[in-house]
Amino acid sequence: MNANNNSYVVGVDFGTLSGRAVVVRVSDGAEVGTAVHEYAHRVIEDRLPGTGTRLGPDWALQSPEDWREVLRVAVPQAVAAAGISPEQVIGLGTDFTACTVLPATADGTPLCEVEGLTARPHAWPKLWKHHAAQPHADRINEVAARRGEAWLPRYGGRISSEWAFAKGLQVLEEDPEVYRRAERWIEAADWIVWQLTGVETRNVCTAGYKAIHQDGAYPSEDFLAELNPAFAAFPAKLGREPAPLGGLAGRLTSRAAGWTGLPEGIAISVGNVDAHVTAAAADAVRPGQMVAIMGTSTCHVMPAERLAEVPGMCGVVRDGIVPGLWGYEAGQSAVGDIFAWFVETSVPGSYEREAGRRGQTVHEYLTELAAAQPVGAHGLVALDWLGGNRSVLVDHDLSGVVVGQTLATRPEDTYRALIEATAFGARMIVETFEASGVPVGEFVAAGGLIRNRFLMQVYADVLRRPISVIGSEQGCALGSAIHAAVAAGAYADITEAAGAMGKRTEAAYLPDPARADVYDRLYAEYRRLHDHFADGAMLHGLRALRNETSAPAGGTGTPVNETIEENA
Amino acid sequence: MNANNNSYVVGVDFGTLSGRAVVVRVSDGAEVGTAVHEYAHRVIEDRLPGTGTRLGPDWALQSPEDWREVLRVAVPQAVAAAGISPEQVIGLGTDFTACTVLPATADGTPLCEVEGLTARPHAWPKLWKHHAAQPHADRINEVAARRGEAWLPRYGGRISSEWAFAKGLQVLEEDPEVYRRAERWIEAADWIVWQLTGVETRNVCTAGYKAIHQDGAYPSEDFLAELNPAFAAFPAKLGREPAPLGGLAGRLTSRAAGWTGLPEGIAISVGNVDAHVTAAAADAVRPGQMVAIMGTSTCHVMPAERLAEVPGMCGVVRDGIVPGLWGYEAGQSAVGDIFAWFVETSVPGSYEREAGRRGQTVHEYLTELAAAQPVGAHGLVALDWLGGNRSVLVDHDLSGVVVGQTLATRPEDTYRALIEATAFGARMIVETFEASGVPVGEFVAAGGLIRNRFLMQVYADVLRRPISVIGSEQGCALGSAIHAAVAAGAYADITEAAGAMGKRTEAAYLPDPARADVYDRLYAEYRRLHDHFADGAMLHGLRALRNETSAPAGGTGTPVNETIEENA
Repeated sequence: MNANNNSYVVGVDFGTLSGRAVVVRVSDGAEVGTAVHEYAHRVIEDRLPGTGTRLGPDWALQSPEDWREVLRVAVPQAVAAAGISPEQVIGLGTDFTACTVLPATADGTPLCEVEGLTARPHAWPKLWKHHAAQPHADRINEVAARRGEAWLPRYGGRISSEWAFAKGLQVLEEDPEVYRRAERWIEAADWIVWQLTGVETRNVCTAGYKAIHQDGAYPSEDFLAELNPAFAAFPAKLGREPAPLGGLAGRLTSRAAGWTGLPEGIAISVGNVDAHVTAAAADAVRPGQMVAIMGTSTCHVMPAERLAEVPGMCGVVRDGIVPGLWGYEAGQSAVGDIFAWFVETSVPGSYEREAGRRGQTVHEYLTELAAAQPVGAHGLVALDWLGGNRSVLVDHDLSGVVVGQTLATRPEDTYRALIEATAFGARMIVETFEASGVPVGEFVAAGGLIRNRFLMQVYADVLRRPISVIGSEQGCALGSAIHAAVAAGAYADITEAAGAMGKRTEAAYLPDPARADVYDRLYAEYRRLHDHFADGAMLHGLRALRNETSAPAGGTGTPVNETIEENA
Repeated sequence: MNANNNSYVVGVDFGTLSGRAVVVRVSDGAEVGTAVHEYAHRVIEDRLPGTGTRLGPDWALQSPEDWREVLRVAVPQAVAAAGISPEQVIGLGTDFTACTVLPATADGTPLCEVEGLTARPHAWPKLWKHHAAQPHADRINEVAARRGEAWLPRYGGRISSEWAFAKGLQVLEEDPEVYRRAERWIEAADWIVWQLTGVETRNVCTAGYKAIHQDGAYPSEDFLAELNPAFAAFPAKLGREPAPLGGLAGRLTSRAAGWTGLPEGIAISVGNVDAHVTAAAADAVRPGQMVAIMGTSTCHVMPAERLAEVPGMCGVVRDGIVPGLWGYEAGQSAVGDIFAWFVETSVPGSYEREAGRRGQTVHEYLTELAAAQPVGAHGLVALDWLGGNRSVLVDHDLSGVVVGQTLATRPEDTYRALIEATAFGARMIVETFEASGVPVGEFVAAGGLIRNRFLMQVYADVLRRPISVIGSEQGCALGSAIHAAVAAGAYADITEAAGAMGKRTEAAYLPDPARADVYDRLYAEYRRLHDHFADGAMLHGLRALRNETSAPAGGTGTPVNETIEENA
């Protein structure tokens, strides 16, 4: 493939706060140029831009114009940084947060950009972490369970309030006019591809994981009508048959060529999700390779030969990671978010000053102190549920527990216990897969947390298995670029492209048997704690009391800001 | 009692880190002068003074010379501050931490001051919080339970490692020579009175609560011989028949008159304990008046007409608070210590800076933020066991639990939850008394924490009863002065003296029914948490693992310093 030595692809990763473009050499995946552009509006949680309309609690929106701006700014900057000619670029691929979803007209115009609708909150794109559709998700789950819908077990028995149907039902019931005028209800992952190509496509990944597309169909009209008669035709807004990952969605339009500075007509790959493209970036798309993308939260993706219904997984989707295999997804609601919360709220000024004196971040200083301890010396065990529990309990209303504090407990003790708690959470997921007959052959770490070597070693010791590590700091964008290379025809399929362009260090961290033995004892305590609090009897009660007593009289506005900055 | 208008008594309170002298007018309890002297050696935990001999984990010693220095420095300073003539002082009374106990010769010389013994750790006074005799306490409890010793239920079924027999047995088994040379094993409360009077006495209070003196006798030789044959004669070291509280122990010697600047021959009252004298200072020595001395820890003392065996109390002693009544004692191992720990370890620099900007302490700032919340708005419930649980579980090896954290939990939320946890712990104690047929008629707060008005209101709301508050900031020393007035013959008994000289505001805080209703729900969660973790299955396991993994190879030295400053 000598031709690929002079060919490049661009991967664009649309994150929660910014978009990143990376220019990648097709022959070997070398990342030769990169640029990041922060969204002007970041996450819209309090008031709509321009009109100032107030949002309710748990709302989270974004602006489509912020996404377009990434194409206009970050892509040309990355190409310039790479020092290549735009003519050497043969394709562009994208990945997006999901389920980030918006209402649009039949030509792809977001409703929030339609005159007369910009002041309507429901006309705006709902970010993945918009959690105000929980009552709608609850009803979907209740009706589906009662009716025994066949798709429900594929989502661990419970769909999320973050997903397309819950958010769509919320729009219908809270702003019927916006719902009616939404000719399309489309993932941002697909909308951005539409902007690039002028052609509407839907990708298999979000259709399956976020829009309940299973065995070739969306949920039945019957089912949807039982939720709300006007909801029966919802799938008509979801567009055509989903397209395969790595497929050619279309070719760069002249308008989008103008934005990006790239040649008109180059290949644009089918839309995809940040976590799922990372498997290709780590060259880990074979059955049993579990890739954990560890950042503010952790997403686990793993291809497998067979279909099983694993309790508490987020979803299993045919062709959902690579064509030809079942793609499993599981997740931990908060991981890096927990460490960021701890550093922001629970570390004294004396530690901040000492870290500053040493030229370290507080994270680095706490990590150094924590790493000096023998396993179990802090006497603590914690539940990693400060952001709820995605897998295996699928319950956003759970909360954290810390057990074992004494008057001698120091910040580094709790910090370490929280790191361990997330590792125990990961072990619970791995064991649940294996107990369901879906073997985990290799655990591959990706995401911002791989920079913390102590944390990675804790995971190796807790999981009692080697940890492989992705060889890129921009795994999402690299993964998108790999998909672009496939769409451009440079490789036969994702597996071949990932083999050439993806990067990982196998067994970068090895478990220490002595430490692993002690962790087995701590994990047993974690399991006991997990099982005791799993039913939510106490945690739901505390949360209900919190919501009841802290709700403002008018029911609008969030009394406490739950937003924590991403740390990855 | 006009004569009392010109008469004064001095109360001296020997605390953990310092001694305080207060000059009090006999007629009305007016506190006219005060002085504090800090112990030069404070708490000796790492190495012996002078020789530098290393101490083991959980050791805590003090220096007798530090106590004498309080008599030499603080007493004359207080008299000078009062602007009275020493000749107007008719008596002096003392109270001490307990069980703080030392080995001495037959003339009262502490063994640590005997040539050749100063480098022997066991020759030094053991402070109340010396916890290294836990294995000895465990054996005492085990043998007593097996033999069905009649005294055991009077201590809630379990004696403490802090008490005289456990500490004495430790000396015998770890340094038999020091044990043999200890002709006396004496509470510091009685030793200081011996220093003042030249006469050895033992007080009913420490004999009962700390040295298992019940129904006129110490534990039997049989019982003690079963622990260790050489221990059978231990009570011979405990001296004569205990003397009643408020009694005349003796008269000030010329040597002690030289130290204190007070007239030779004035009345010195029988030794007593800091918590127990406070009941007199609050004029709360009648049946059913529970006085809670709330500082780093909380001690509850209450006289009652009848004897009952209340589970988990610290002790019930005939005449133990005032002659003629049964004196009950219960306790919470850590209260103010928990808040101090939290402020020291868990509050970010931004809070420290904001508190500084407002001219507040961090405690004050957190209290203000916490007080602004509705009950239950933090979504948390905690167990107040960071220092173990004294009542009602009598288990020093328990530890803390915090439940319900989310990524939105702020420091003031946890601070408030910890304050509430201590109030729930107090409610558990009150309810346990009442369930055992010992009614609590009035809850009287004393100690340093009464300065926190928000905390006091939380206690009123949680307990659903009015809280009375002592009218003195130096309740211990005032209580000792009241006992001195009785010993000097100015009043017929403690009750009469307390009526004239003690001070409290009845029903200073009233419960708010709406808040109390919500607290009932939170208390129900606390009870559930309490009952779940009470057996120690998890908490003992975590502690055992901690001790096992963090013990230094040589078995000496404390890897983590458990000392927290007193905040009262």
